[in-house]
Amino acid sequence: MKDIHLFLLLTVLFSCKESVPATENTKAEITEVLPSWKDGESRKSIINFVESITDPQKADFVPAADRIATFDNDGTLWSEQPIYFQVAFAMDAAKKMVAKNPEMKKDAIFNALANNDMDAVLEAGVAGLGKILVVTHTGMNTDEFNKSVGEWVKTATHPKTGKLYKEMIFQPMLEVINYLKANEFSVYIVSGGGTDFMRPWAEDVYGIPRDNIIGSTYALEYVMENDEPVLKILPEVGFNDDKEGKPMAIHQYIGRKPIVAFGNSDGDLQMLKWTDSNSHPSLQVYVRHTDEAREWKYDRESHIGQLDKGLDEAEAKGWTIVDMKNDWEVIYPYEMKNP
Amino acid sequence: MKDIHLFLLLTVLFSCKESVPATENTKAEITEVLPSWKDGESRKSIINFVESITDPQKADFVPAADRIATFDNDGTLWSEQPIYFQVAFAMDAAKKMVAKNPEMKKDAIFNALANNDMDAVLEAGVAGLGKILVVTHTGMNTDEFNKSVGEWVKTATHPKTGKLYKEMIFQPMLEVINYLKANEFSVYIVSGGGTDFMRPWAEDVYGIPRDNIIGSTYALEYVMENDEPVLKILPEVGFNDDKEGKPMAIHQYIGRKPIVAFGNSDGDLQMLKWTDSNSHPSLQVYVRHTDEAREWKYDRESHIGQLDKGLDEAEAKGWTIVDMKNDWEVIYPYEMKNP
Repeated sequence: MKDIHLFLLLTVLFSCKESVPATENTKAEITEVLPSWKDGESRKSIINFVESITDPQKADFVPAADRIATFDNDGTLWSEQPIYFQVAFAMDAAKKMVAKNPEMKKDAIFNALANNDMDAVLEAGVAGLGKILVVTHTGMNTDEFNKSVGEWVKTATHPKTGKLYKEMIFQPMLEVINYLKANEFSVYIVSGGGTDFMRPWAEDVYGIPRDNIIGSTYALEYVMENDEPVLKILPEVGFNDDKEGKPMAIHQYIGRKPIVAFGNSDGDLQMLKWTDSNSHPSLQVYVRHTDEAREWKYDRESHIGQLDKGLDEAEAKGWTIVDMKNDWEVIYPYEMKNP
Repeated sequence: MKDIHLFLLLTVLFSCKESVPATENTKAEITEVLPSWKDGESRKSIINFVESITDPQKADFVPAADRIATFDNDGTLWSEQPIYFQVAFAMDAAKKMVAKNPEMKKDAIFNALANNDMDAVLEAGVAGLGKILVVTHTGMNTDEFNKSVGEWVKTATHPKTGKLYKEMIFQPMLEVINYLKANEFSVYIVSGGGTDFMRPWAEDVYGIPRDNIIGSTYALEYVMENDEPVLKILPEVGFNDDKEGKPMAIHQYIGRKPIVAFGNSDGDLQMLKWTDSNSHPSLQVYVRHTDEAREWKYDRESHIGQLDKGLDEAEAKGWTIVDMKNDWEVIYPYEMKNP
């Protein structure tokens, strides 16, 4: 459990607002290349790379089978502040459980959660968060967990924007995904977040096939329930898809080294280095959170999505560093409707 | 290590012939539906199923995204006698290592191998085979292992047929794979054999994408070598993709339950039961080795590819049981050239 706990470590307190209804997110249709990107160095580096590796006349040409692109999720494809959205899911789900099972309040952490006493939740630290994760992510079977996430993602909204969490995806990144797919790339998510947490919604929201969505897992157990096989989720780490885990997951799941990788934190550094070691030309991109007004601003000192060593490496290697504030015309798809 | 050892357990001794050159296997082009299948119940059950789930007018219709088909490999897509072909690779590779490093002969098992003393190899049992597997499958990085398998599969031949191992794939199964793909199925291998052992050749030989080839793995370690990241293969089990492991791998890698599953042994039973529990209509098929003359004949008593509990379940549930001798016009693609 330890590693997933650390990954999901709650470090910033968020105020628990009531959910408010929000409109369903609709994926924008892309008719031109990266239209939400300002015409700067970042946009150019992406387009130049794709044009050079897809032109059979050029030395840099890469056959379609080797056009693998991997994306981190939290902070790269959607926001991750003030807490990882998967942790928000866990807290919401735990509150529902406590409401149904008041005896859970005997445990201080669930009592604090039920009372929206976030100071007490924070005080309980990693151990407290661990209990919240275990009770909401394990013990049930995979179908039940899938259903639980699916219901949450349809209605749960973010305390700051009031938007559905799944609406807080990055419009410019959707355009990159679609642009790469249009250029015969196979596009994957390689995230520290849970595979089973992402799959119920990420396939539709990003247009990335379910089996291309790779993340962290809990161990499973195959058991018969009412004469039917189910996979029970156990409270122990199966695979921690962060840092060194990302190149491993890429090898085990994909079997080819990417030529494009996007990340936003030090947890993505090994994936970017792995991609950089491709014998084909490759593109490494860090999305840097620089927009205090429209999104969040954080990097070297942040406990969530810390970008410190990665930033040094990117600068030293000349990787692309996206400046969200200056490179992106819009952040979220819903801004497109109110220009 | 234990589980992979058990899976690859050497139980039948084979005589070590010298390699003889063989022609490159070419995958037959399929112009009609399952042409190498005799017009019996097995062929009918496959075609009837596919026709019923692809017809939008029928109640059994399954959308293309849910058309997942999983195939075991050893004994289902290619032969597995007298020893799993991956074990043959390990023995060949270990012999080459001993020839280059004579000091390895200090260990009795490698000395026996160098002397082609198969009685002594057999006597060393699981522990001896374990040493052979560890030394040939671990300690190197994934690129080096990939190269080692790639070279072997190009030239290594089977002691009984004299054909390349990769030529000993089942022509009727190639036709099933192509038939399903033509009907918008996503086709996967879910094998107890090694992912890294299969990927260097299985993509081309079966026409199944590399990231759809799922198997057992050793644990990996991300390390820097000469300033480049590599994945070192460790001598400990990462994932054992056999029995209960198969539904788990299907969940983790694919994220959808199959509607079609083919296996040949008790190691595939959980995968077939998992498929049978799909809320969509589903098809479960056991390939039964009944052809002593053209292939091998074995089931309930065999130590390799034992089909005992699976056969009982298949008979009780009315699953399709393919009788290789009576259902298949040809076994291997190379027979097509000499009708």
